[in-house]
Amino acid sequence: MAVKLNCKHLEGFLSADELKAIQPEIDKSVETINARNGAGSDFLGWIDLPIDYDKEEFTRIQTAAEKIRKTCDVFIVIGIGGSYLGARAAIEFIKSPLYNNLKKNTPDIYFAGNTISGNALDELLSICEGKDICVNVISKSGTTTEPAIAFRIFRELLEKKYGEDGAKERIFATTDKSKGSLKSLSVEKGYETFVVPDDVGGRYSVLTAVGLLPIAVAGCDINKLMQGAADARTAFKGRSDTDCAKYAAIRNCLYRKGKAIEILACYHSFFSMTAEWWKQLYGESEGKDGKGIFPASVIFSTDLHSMGQMIQEGVRNVFETVVDIKQTGAKATVPGDSADLDGLNFLAGSELNAVNHKALEATVLAHCDGGVPNIILEVDSKSEYDFGYMVYFFEMACAVSGYTLGVNPFNQPGVENYKNNMYALLGKPGDQYQARRAELLKRLGK
Amino acid sequence: MAVKLNCKHLEGFLSADELKAIQPEIDKSVETINARNGAGSDFLGWIDLPIDYDKEEFTRIQTAAEKIRKTCDVFIVIGIGGSYLGARAAIEFIKSPLYNNLKKNTPDIYFAGNTISGNALDELLSICEGKDICVNVISKSGTTTEPAIAFRIFRELLEKKYGEDGAKERIFATTDKSKGSLKSLSVEKGYETFVVPDDVGGRYSVLTAVGLLPIAVAGCDINKLMQGAADARTAFKGRSDTDCAKYAAIRNCLYRKGKAIEILACYHSFFSMTAEWWKQLYGESEGKDGKGIFPASVIFSTDLHSMGQMIQEGVRNVFETVVDIKQTGAKATVPGDSADLDGLNFLAGSELNAVNHKALEATVLAHCDGGVPNIILEVDSKSEYDFGYMVYFFEMACAVSGYTLGVNPFNQPGVENYKNNMYALLGKPGDQYQARRAELLKRLGK
Repeated sequence: MAVKLNCKHLEGFLSADELKAIQPEIDKSVETINARNGAGSDFLGWIDLPIDYDKEEFTRIQTAAEKIRKTCDVFIVIGIGGSYLGARAAIEFIKSPLYNNLKKNTPDIYFAGNTISGNALDELLSICEGKDICVNVISKSGTTTEPAIAFRIFRELLEKKYGEDGAKERIFATTDKSKGSLKSLSVEKGYETFVVPDDVGGRYSVLTAVGLLPIAVAGCDINKLMQGAADARTAFKGRSDTDCAKYAAIRNCLYRKGKAIEILACYHSFFSMTAEWWKQLYGESEGKDGKGIFPASVIFSTDLHSMGQMIQEGVRNVFETVVDIKQTGAKATVPGDSADLDGLNFLAGSELNAVNHKALEATVLAHCDGGVPNIILEVDSKSEYDFGYMVYFFEMACAVSGYTLGVNPFNQPGVENYKNNMYALLGKPGDQYQARRAELLKRLGK
Repeated sequence: MAVKLNCKHLEGFLSADELKAIQPEIDKSVETINARNGAGSDFLGWIDLPIDYDKEEFTRIQTAAEKIRKTCDVFIVIGIGGSYLGARAAIEFIKSPLYNNLKKNTPDIYFAGNTISGNALDELLSICEGKDICVNVISKSGTTTEPAIAFRIFRELLEKKYGEDGAKERIFATTDKSKGSLKSLSVEKGYETFVVPDDVGGRYSVLTAVGLLPIAVAGCDINKLMQGAADARTAFKGRSDTDCAKYAAIRNCLYRKGKAIEILACYHSFFSMTAEWWKQLYGESEGKDGKGIFPASVIFSTDLHSMGQMIQEGVRNVFETVVDIKQTGAKATVPGDSADLDGLNFLAGSELNAVNHKALEATVLAHCDGGVPNIILEVDSKSEYDFGYMVYFFEMACAVSGYTLGVNPFNQPGVENYKNNMYALLGKPGDQYQARRAELLKRLGK
């Protein structure tokens, strides 16, 4: 098992009886997923994805990644939400959060189209000056505002720089297999395309072309990534007696006892985008119908010096899930110092990550003493395999947890509200927007 | 006013009567701060800091910054918590979150000593290879584990590379004015030193040398920064009828009505470290005695595609404070496209930030409709002046809010718990640690 649950530190917070009592609900959730007859079951493509994927496309992804690596200095990945977080999480976890600043033989990778900030775009354009560029635009419809705006800008840039014929060799579109504006444009212009499957939602899409192409460009082995997910599928699919199902059970038990916030904690900055990916997965799957655990994240020990005080002694409405990465390959050790003014010589020669792990254990015990239930999730390493395994663990646990919460874990109806208001305020053509516009302007006092 | 509160969207969530009812408590909190007779009043040095600071040291900071800019490619800032977040927040807000990747005539700036992750340190060392380096180590005592370890490593590196005499010209220590191990070492080695004042806590220290030296190295005008804070002091100090006091009042009213989580939202990624600074300020000041609003943050519209669903339709235990930056200087516009396959031509020629602002207004109304109270904080621009003004606004509001909550806003007793456990597990010499060690190992099952 590349990912294991350690529940030792739930003692006193959750009894064996409580877990036993909720087990029939967990069993039922697992059955619902397996029978594919629950709410949202049109979006269960992720379940078998680690083995049942398009092998021809997978090879094309590897070939395209190789071509991109050879032909550009800067690779721009345009996408938002699930078309952004998974790839960035993987690259930072497996490679580094400082990937762009490290010496390497792969291109710099920047993520665009996940914001409408003009400042972010101006800066990215200045970074691109004088560099060779490739673009991967990721959007099922092609009409989502944020990536569509960014793609207009980068397409214009590439066509100016390389001509239409040159640009088409540098633009890769990940989109619907047959319909939508980005698919049409790609066919017209001759872009190589990859598929966003119909039955895999954005937040579950990291193991499709959506995530795989950028991850491969960064030099990660996507075969190993898929193998990790495949092994996790074997371990967790259709079973309600696993660590994965247990994580779902524990979350629901704690939520019902008033724990409103789950804090995902890790002791390495390379995890911070994985935490953002996790926040989308759980927040968007569970936050509906007036329900759901609020997902937050911290990087310790950094944030022990910001959020640590509140976690230790604030309102007791939180629990922590601590991700303990076992093997990290780091080499740094604490140097000795004959003067020892800082009193750290008792650590001289120790590996930093050994010290870091003591900090983890120390904090788990301190926070438990402060009244915060702590779940530990042990992950073998920061390899491609373990990232893939962990992704599947969290995905399956989320589905089980969502059904147990009594929601449809696979829709996101609330994401439309801001969009419709935004179209109205921006004056998008269409009667429905015009009528709304007057009402909104009035509320804004305009 | 460089920072203004817009409370229009609290209608229906908070009545004028409720604000009137809490006002006497706010008045009392402001009086307590002014009379300097509340809990923690030894740490009120931040109140007059914007005008009452060491002018000679201020000039030395500017001179040192100039020297650092001239002599290095990479500037390493070693510190944790308040000795890290303020400077990083300012540099990303005023300059850019991509500061290190932009072309510029100032050094790259990396923050170290805020983690024990060996991976983070290994990577930073590889980035430093072949580069000229200066270091600013920031620690009042010099014995805090995270920065002390990092400083051992970088001091060793600099002494190897430049010799002791060369290294001392490249190491700048911000520490206690007279005592502590870092002060002693600095005197012995001949480092230039700057002062962490006794009466300013870490999370309130960004306008001291702690924040000012790194901010100045990045090329920001620290005179303007102080001027902004000074003007905010004039506007807010000793008054309970200001927007600053009102923000404190609103937060407490909402908290008492069950709003357990405050989400600080901004529409630009250059705000994300300012949000982290704010989380320390509020979380560490208020999260104690079983109380406190849980501070969270999002960057929209990015996170509308991850946390947006939950904010729109999840548990109604949240409120949002939306930071609306008025002038950003961005130039990017939406290009036209004759084919208009994505249907965005109605935006052609619009500035991205104008579109971004419509997204802000749209989202505020959507979230209000979803049952989430929205406070808007209007900030004039991303200038040094406005950053300084905003810092003081948040600091004063935090103090008023904390006293109104009934806590000591200036201590952080809970931060010691993990440290004591960690020292015990690491085998630090001392009877108190030895005794605790056995007990902790037993609880860990070792």
